[in-house]
Amino acid sequence: MSDARDTGLTLDPKYDRDGLITAVVTDVDSGDVLMVAHMNAQALALTVETGFAHFWSRSRQSLWKKGESSGHMLAVRDIRIDCDQDAVWVKAVPAGPTCHTGARSCFFRRVTAEGLTPVDAEA
Amino acid sequence: MSDARDTGLTLDPKYDRDGLITAVVTDVDSGDVLMVAHMNAQALALTVETGFAHFWSRSRQSLWKKGESSGHMLAVRDIRIDCDQDAVWVKAVPAGPTCHTGARSCFFRRVTAEGLTPVDAEA
Repeated sequence: MSDARDTGLTLDPKYDRDGLITAVVTDVDSGDVLMVAHMNAQALALTVETGFAHFWSRSRQSLWKKGESSGHMLAVRDIRIDCDQDAVWVKAVPAGPTCHTGARSCFFRRVTAEGLTPVDAEA
Repeated sequence: MSDARDTGLTLDPKYDRDGLITAVVTDVDSGDVLMVAHMNAQALALTVETGFAHFWSRSRQSLWKKGESSGHMLAVRDIRIDCDQDAVWVKAVPAGPTCHTGARSCFFRRVTAEGLTPVDAEA
């Protein structure tokens, strides 16, 4: 079962105790990581079916179509799953800033030995 | 506190109930996502200090320097943290295949409505 999950061609997500897998979204053009969130089975299925990224909001405990309120949807171009099937990589075209702060990417700060430093949005 | 964590310049990781944050590693040259794993405070500190990616292995319940047995270390070029500080993005130069299966990236399968399909390693 472990081998089948690791190398086979059957979708068999390894959901955690909350029924979630990790979802990483990158910008299909720049390759930048835009956000990291979580998907339950329904969010993954809707992402595959509709071509727009859906997640499970742990804070709101509800299904969440990214951009449903802001309009900043993520149009999916490719979905990959990792070896142990507990994470997916979504390549997307963002319709606007992905971060709730208004930043293009949620990863707008660099970690250094001295603390955090802001990263130029276009860097 | 929430605002400070979201937009400030103080490193204040939001560890989950297991003391972990999510770590996404991309290839600094190709931009491809190589792997997704987890870090505890010690793994994050060692990654920043040593310049080589360290993780917390949930299956082995131990600190894990990536490549310590395989030699396929991840030389860190940049570390970013996301808005709510529960995920880091590590840009790295991989010394070899990142996946335990021997694949360059753990994300070697595409998710489609019909199941999984293999992705050309160089695609």
